[in-house]
Amino acid sequence: MATDNKPILVSAGQLSAFIARALVSAGLPQQDAAKVAHLMAAADLQGSDGHGVIRLPQYVKRIKTGGINTRPNIRIVSERAAMAVVDGDNGMGHLVMSHAVDIAIEKARSAGVAWVGARASNHAGPASLYVRKPVEQDMIALYFAVGNANHLPPWGGMEMLLSTNPIAVGVPAGSGPAIVLDMATTVAAYGKVKAKAKRGEQMPEGWMIDRQGKPLLDPTRAEEGFLLPIGGHKGYGLALIVGLLAGTLNGAAMGRDVVDFNHDHVTPTNTGQAVLVIDLRAFGEPAVFKAAVDRLAHDLHSSERLPGVERIWLPGEQSHQRRQKYADQGIPIPAGLVADLVALAKELDIPALVSEQPPT
Amino acid sequence: MATDNKPILVSAGQLSAFIARALVSAGLPQQDAAKVAHLMAAADLQGSDGHGVIRLPQYVKRIKTGGINTRPNIRIVSERAAMAVVDGDNGMGHLVMSHAVDIAIEKARSAGVAWVGARASNHAGPASLYVRKPVEQDMIALYFAVGNANHLPPWGGMEMLLSTNPIAVGVPAGSGPAIVLDMATTVAAYGKVKAKAKRGEQMPEGWMIDRQGKPLLDPTRAEEGFLLPIGGHKGYGLALIVGLLAGTLNGAAMGRDVVDFNHDHVTPTNTGQAVLVIDLRAFGEPAVFKAAVDRLAHDLHSSERLPGVERIWLPGEQSHQRRQKYADQGIPIPAGLVADLVALAKELDIPALVSEQPPT
Repeated sequence: MATDNKPILVSAGQLSAFIARALVSAGLPQQDAAKVAHLMAAADLQGSDGHGVIRLPQYVKRIKTGGINTRPNIRIVSERAAMAVVDGDNGMGHLVMSHAVDIAIEKARSAGVAWVGARASNHAGPASLYVRKPVEQDMIALYFAVGNANHLPPWGGMEMLLSTNPIAVGVPAGSGPAIVLDMATTVAAYGKVKAKAKRGEQMPEGWMIDRQGKPLLDPTRAEEGFLLPIGGHKGYGLALIVGLLAGTLNGAAMGRDVVDFNHDHVTPTNTGQAVLVIDLRAFGEPAVFKAAVDRLAHDLHSSERLPGVERIWLPGEQSHQRRQKYADQGIPIPAGLVADLVALAKELDIPALVSEQPPT
Repeated sequence: MATDNKPILVSAGQLSAFIARALVSAGLPQQDAAKVAHLMAAADLQGSDGHGVIRLPQYVKRIKTGGINTRPNIRIVSERAAMAVVDGDNGMGHLVMSHAVDIAIEKARSAGVAWVGARASNHAGPASLYVRKPVEQDMIALYFAVGNANHLPPWGGMEMLLSTNPIAVGVPAGSGPAIVLDMATTVAAYGKVKAKAKRGEQMPEGWMIDRQGKPLLDPTRAEEGFLLPIGGHKGYGLALIVGLLAGTLNGAAMGRDVVDFNHDHVTPTNTGQAVLVIDLRAFGEPAVFKAAVDRLAHDLHSSERLPGVERIWLPGEQSHQRRQKYADQGIPIPAGLVADLVALAKELDIPALVSEQPPT
């Protein structure tokens, strides 16, 4: 299986079923496992390959060592009309943030806008996963998270006190796909570095530097260096602010308190995340807003391009296209990752992930 | 006066009084003029020299040509527990956003979090001005604005459909100054380009490119090129999202509808801005949060530095130091700008801005 170094192709359903089997075998209740597996497969389906099934071995390890609470009491610990703080009780981050988003949607429906933060959560996959549900209900959503390992020093510094702290924003559109921005505040997310390593590829210059300040290109040496923020001091500022909003404000880990979940599989991460939901209905007729978004998208798409540029993309369009393509043709799982998943299946004594034949 | 090309030094009070005289002479009511002048001088006092008194000639021109409503009915047009949309009735942006911030503070006090957007507003100076008041009341504030001229094409494009759309965030601290991030989503704000031109300096490479994609260094040729976004496609995505949140959502100008207020002094700009206010009290004891911010600031400040770096800065610290220094020694007004202000005073038949002697 995957001995020829080529990726295999699987459907989202097959991938989700495999992930759920693994999580149940590791100790998660069936319903929770299915929910997490669905979100993880959704990550791979949209091409967020640094945050999908690639994380499964790590999650399983953490669950088995007791680093995740498999029976969490996820609950609101403080609340007002337009906000809540959720304590995730060290449950899987996907479960905590799904719950937080549901609360935010509910509150935004009456207050117009709502902010829900989480503490004692865990890694929850790609940020954009959590803006999709509000968007489907004619709401704008912003998501902020503290990354689960510090790879970023302050600007001018050498000590990695900050993470890639991502931001995602989803904005409903009319006829076209929703505008979905999902970005790390670093030039590259650490998940992308891991994916490069898994594919045996080099990183482009500008992603990371080593402790001498020189470009670091080999992703297998990632731990010898650190990521670079976008726009220099601006990206550092953004990473810090996102950490304050998603971490410190919720009583979650930030700075030195962040647990490196790539190395430590036991200590509760006390991960912080936050979501802001804005109900379009509070501002006017959603259809009017969405028509304005469509008009803007049209203007951007049809605007003059630099020589050699084939098209202007809006944030989220490439993920949208990938989602359609992968739904059609299957999700490619690189050979190196397949090998890891085969080993995981053996370890857990569950049926392996089976490849679909690519369409002829 | 300023014949030797050296800047003059003025106090914030003198600067504010001069600005107020000019605005009253142009047609603004005394009280509104004083409010705007105070905020404009506060911009110069913190070193936001692209957004303070440098804009006065342009504001006066717009007021005198009828491009600003000097007797606006600034009012709420839609409202929920945690949000409002304010129609600025084409009044001065400083007045509209001061009012919007007051509403947001009031609503956040009960709902925990509040979002207030504005339409039919105007240029309101540096973004960070509007996060200071919430911060003083133990609230976090985020500010978003649509810039008043498009200088940014979509990523890969040539047509300037986006502005520098800035973001400001203020976070209360305990013993140290508040953390205040104020950033354009471009590598440089257009105000900084104008300030460079006024000082007769060249721009560094990376700020702007010309229509052939080559670096543009001469700020007097700024209109032949466009600004570059931070982090390439990421900064483009951020500029777009900020425009959707501050512009489109409020029914304000965005994309092709943005009026270039550097050239057009008559057409109402329908400027959009938005502020999000988060009351720390809803999340717990503000003192606990602020102590955590102090601890984080200490960790960042005392962390290991790259060779040649003298200190690690937090966002807002340089402005904070400048504010103290300028309050002490006077605000430097470059000779070129002084000449413009002398001409303006003559035109308006008001007493000129008088220099303080620098301390001996």
